[in-house]
Amino acid sequence: MASLDGFFRPESVAVIGASRDPRKPGHVIFRNFLEGNFKGKVYPVNPNAEVLIGRKCYPSVTDIEGRIDLAVIVVPAEAAIKAMEDCGKKGIKNVVVNAGGFRETGNSQLEEQLIKAAKKHGIKFIGPNTLGIFDAHSGVDTLFNPKYKLERPQAGGISFISQSGAIMSVVLDWMSMKGYKASKFISYGNAADIDESELLEYLASDSRTKVICMYIEGARNGRKFFDAAKRVSGRKPIIALKGGKTEEGGKAVSSHTGSLAGQAAIYSAAFRQAGIIEADDIEQLFDFARMVSSQPAAKGNRVQIITDGGGFGILFADNMARNGLQLAMMESGRLEDLRKRLPEHAVVGSIIDLTGDVNAERYGMCISAAMDDGLVDMIVVIALFQVPALTGEIVEVVAEAARERKKPIAFIAAGGRFTEVLKKSLEDYGVPTFSYPERAAAALKALNEYSMLSR
Amino acid sequence: MASLDGFFRPESVAVIGASRDPRKPGHVIFRNFLEGNFKGKVYPVNPNAEVLIGRKCYPSVTDIEGRIDLAVIVVPAEAAIKAMEDCGKKGIKNVVVNAGGFRETGNSQLEEQLIKAAKKHGIKFIGPNTLGIFDAHSGVDTLFNPKYKLERPQAGGISFISQSGAIMSVVLDWMSMKGYKASKFISYGNAADIDESELLEYLASDSRTKVICMYIEGARNGRKFFDAAKRVSGRKPIIALKGGKTEEGGKAVSSHTGSLAGQAAIYSAAFRQAGIIEADDIEQLFDFARMVSSQPAAKGNRVQIITDGGGFGILFADNMARNGLQLAMMESGRLEDLRKRLPEHAVVGSIIDLTGDVNAERYGMCISAAMDDGLVDMIVVIALFQVPALTGEIVEVVAEAARERKKPIAFIAAGGRFTEVLKKSLEDYGVPTFSYPERAAAALKALNEYSMLSR
Repeated sequence: MASLDGFFRPESVAVIGASRDPRKPGHVIFRNFLEGNFKGKVYPVNPNAEVLIGRKCYPSVTDIEGRIDLAVIVVPAEAAIKAMEDCGKKGIKNVVVNAGGFRETGNSQLEEQLIKAAKKHGIKFIGPNTLGIFDAHSGVDTLFNPKYKLERPQAGGISFISQSGAIMSVVLDWMSMKGYKASKFISYGNAADIDESELLEYLASDSRTKVICMYIEGARNGRKFFDAAKRVSGRKPIIALKGGKTEEGGKAVSSHTGSLAGQAAIYSAAFRQAGIIEADDIEQLFDFARMVSSQPAAKGNRVQIITDGGGFGILFADNMARNGLQLAMMESGRLEDLRKRLPEHAVVGSIIDLTGDVNAERYGMCISAAMDDGLVDMIVVIALFQVPALTGEIVEVVAEAARERKKPIAFIAAGGRFTEVLKKSLEDYGVPTFSYPERAAAALKALNEYSMLSR
Repeated sequence: MASLDGFFRPESVAVIGASRDPRKPGHVIFRNFLEGNFKGKVYPVNPNAEVLIGRKCYPSVTDIEGRIDLAVIVVPAEAAIKAMEDCGKKGIKNVVVNAGGFRETGNSQLEEQLIKAAKKHGIKFIGPNTLGIFDAHSGVDTLFNPKYKLERPQAGGISFISQSGAIMSVVLDWMSMKGYKASKFISYGNAADIDESELLEYLASDSRTKVICMYIEGARNGRKFFDAAKRVSGRKPIIALKGGKTEEGGKAVSSHTGSLAGQAAIYSAAFRQAGIIEADDIEQLFDFARMVSSQPAAKGNRVQIITDGGGFGILFADNMARNGLQLAMMESGRLEDLRKRLPEHAVVGSIIDLTGDVNAERYGMCISAAMDDGLVDMIVVIALFQVPALTGEIVEVVAEAARERKKPIAFIAAGGRFTEVLKKSLEDYGVPTFSYPERAAAALKALNEYSMLSR
C-alpha cells in the first residue's frame, strides 16, 4: 500500500479555487496554509485573479513552475473534473477534493468521471464532499472553516477518521478549547478513492499517531474494513463511534452519505472481534482516546478513589460499578499509616475522603501510597477546587505522580473557569482530566478493556 | 408548617465566627453579604476583633442592638452550642450551622446538644456540617467558597436541595460558567432539624422556584420524604439524582453522611410513584431542569430535527430512539413547500439537513414550518457554528420562535469558545442549549415524561 505521506507532509500545495472573498471556502483554505504552521510553498489557483493575499495567482495548476505535492480542489462539482485532469497533467499525485455535489446529491455519474480522471493519471484522492484534512504537526489544513469559528488544537497523538465533516469540525473546535491535542484529522467524505480502511492502515504506520479515533456510519466494504481493523488494533488502539445504530438513525444515514448503516448488534460484535473499542457518544470517543494514549496499561480493575468531596466519591463509585470496575482496598498497614498522618476527620478506606480543608500535600501522600500498594490497579483523583485551601499546587503533585507511569491515573474536577484552567494545565502534562464521575469511570473501563487486549 | 422565608429573605444577618483571615470560612461568608447583592444589614461577631472589613464587630450576637433575622454559625463544633444558645437569647429564629464535627465524624452527642439548644428557644436551623445556603435573588450567601474559585450564577428559576456540599459547590460554579440561572440552593448537611422534606414543601410554595432539583444519598425518613414529594410533584417538577445506588456507592454513603443508601430499584420505583423525574448524572439533573422549567409541555413524542450537520442529526436520531422518542414527519404539502424554498442539496424529511452553507433565514423557515405542523410535537435545532455562513443571527431566530411557547424547542451546538458564547446568549433568552445529541435527547424525554404527568 502506498504511503499517504504526500497528503500530510507535502512540501508544496496548490489551492485550486482560491478566492478573494473571505467567506468562500477557497479563501479560508488558502489562508490556512499561509497563516498556520505550514512550512512549505503554497500556490493559489484562480483564472480570475492575479494576486491573492499578496501571492501570485495562477490561472491553472499547469501554469505553476515548481513541483506540487498536494492539490486541494475547492471548485463546484462540474469544474472539479477539469481540475483533476489538470492535476494529472501537472503530475500531482495527491488531491483533496473538498467540493461537494457528487454521489451524496444523486450525481453518481459526475463522481464516476472524477474517479476516471484520477485513475488515468495515477492520482490518489480524498473526497469528494469532504471537510478536508488537518495535521496539527505539519500545518496541512484544508478545512474551510475560519479559525475564529473553529479553533485548531495543538499537536499531539490523537488522530481521527470521520465519515462526517460536521462532527470532525465540532471535535477540533472543542479539543482546542479543552486543551486536548491532535495529530491527523481526516474527513473522507464520499470515499470515492481513499477509504476508511486505507486511512486506518496509514495511521497505524504513522509514528505521530498514538491512538486512532473513528466516526463511522457505514463502511463501503465492511469485510475489508474489519480485516484492516483487526491488523491495526494489535499495534495501536482504535476507538470508534458508530452513527445510525438505531432504526431511526439508520434511516437518516442513507440520505446522508448514501452508505448502508447496518444493524447495531452486528456492528458491535464486529467491533469487538476486530479489537475496536466502542464509544457510545462523541465525548466518550475522545475521553477514551486521551486515557488510552496517555496512561500505562492497567493490571486489573481495582480503583482507589481519592477525593475532597464525599458526594463526588460516591457518584464515582456508583459509575465504577456500572462499568465493571471494583473499589480497591489497600493493605491494612498502609491504610493505618495514612490514618495516622491525615487529620482525624479524613475518611480513609476504599474511598479516601480528604474533605473540604484538603491541601495538595495530603493528596500527594495518598497518591504515593496508592501507587506503591499491590492491591491498587488504577487511581482516580477527584479535586474540587471550590474549597478554600486547595491551590494550583495539586497540578504539579498529580503530574509528578503520573510521570512515573506506574499505574493509570485519572483526574476529575468540575466547576467553572478556575477549574477549567487548572485542568488544561494537567492536560499539558499528559494527565487525562474529566468533569464528571460517569465520564472518568467509562474511560477507565475502556483502558482496562484495552489493557486486557494487549496483555 | 412554618415558612422558611427568614432564611432566604432576612433583613438582618449576623455572622458568628466572622474572621479577618481571607482563607477562613468566617471571612468569606461575611464578605459574601457585603459584596453580593444582599440589601439588608450584616453584623460580624467575633470576640477578638473590634472592626472587620470596616464594620463594627461584636463579641456576641447578644451585644447587637437591632433585630436579627438570620444567624450563620461558622465556629468549631464545641463553640457552636454556645453560639446557638446566644442566638436563642437574642431571639433569633433562623440559624445556618456551617460548622462541621458533629454526627458525620461520630460526635452524635454534640449534635444532640445542638438540637436541644435550638429546640429550647424555638429556633429552626439548617445543618450542621453544611456548605450553606445561596439565594441568587436576595443575595443570601453562606457559602464559604471564595468567589474567584466558585462563581455565583445569575438569578433564575432553578432551585437545588443537596445532601452533598461538594456537589452543590461544583454545580453553582459550573452553572455560572454556562450562563444557567439559579434560585435557591440549599446544602442541608446532617439535617439535624430542617430536612429534605421540609425544604421540598417550602420550595413548592416559593414563587421564584420553577423547578426543584435534588441530590440525595438517603432520606432520614423515607416515608415522610416520598409523601412530601408526592404532594409537591403535582405542583412543580422535581428532578432527583440518587447517590449510592450501587453496592459500591452505597458503602461509601454510610461513611459520608451516615444515612442508609437503600437499594437502587426500590428508590427508582419510589421516585416514579412520587412523580419525581430521575436523572442519571449531575449534568442530566440540570439539563432536565432547564428544559422542564423553560419549555411548554409536549403534546407527544414526535421530534422534528433541523440540522446543518448530517452526522449530528444521525446521532440525535440514534439517541432519540434510545429515549423512546420518535422522528416526526410533517404534512407532505408542507415538506413539498420547504423543498421548493430551500436549495436543491438540502435534505428535507424527518431530519432536515440544511448542510454546511446554511444561514439563519433557512433555519427560521424550517422552524416556523415545524411550529405550525400538527404532526410535530417537539423541535430540535442543531446549529454547528463552525460553517462559514452561519452567524449569531440564528440566536434571535430561535429565541423568537421559542418566545411564542407553542412547542418545546431544544438547541444543540458543540464546539469551542465562539459556540459557547452564542449558547450563553440563547440561555439568556430562556432556550435550553446542549453540547451533545445524547444530552438533548435525554432532556426531551424528561420533558415528555413530565408533560404526561401533568396532562
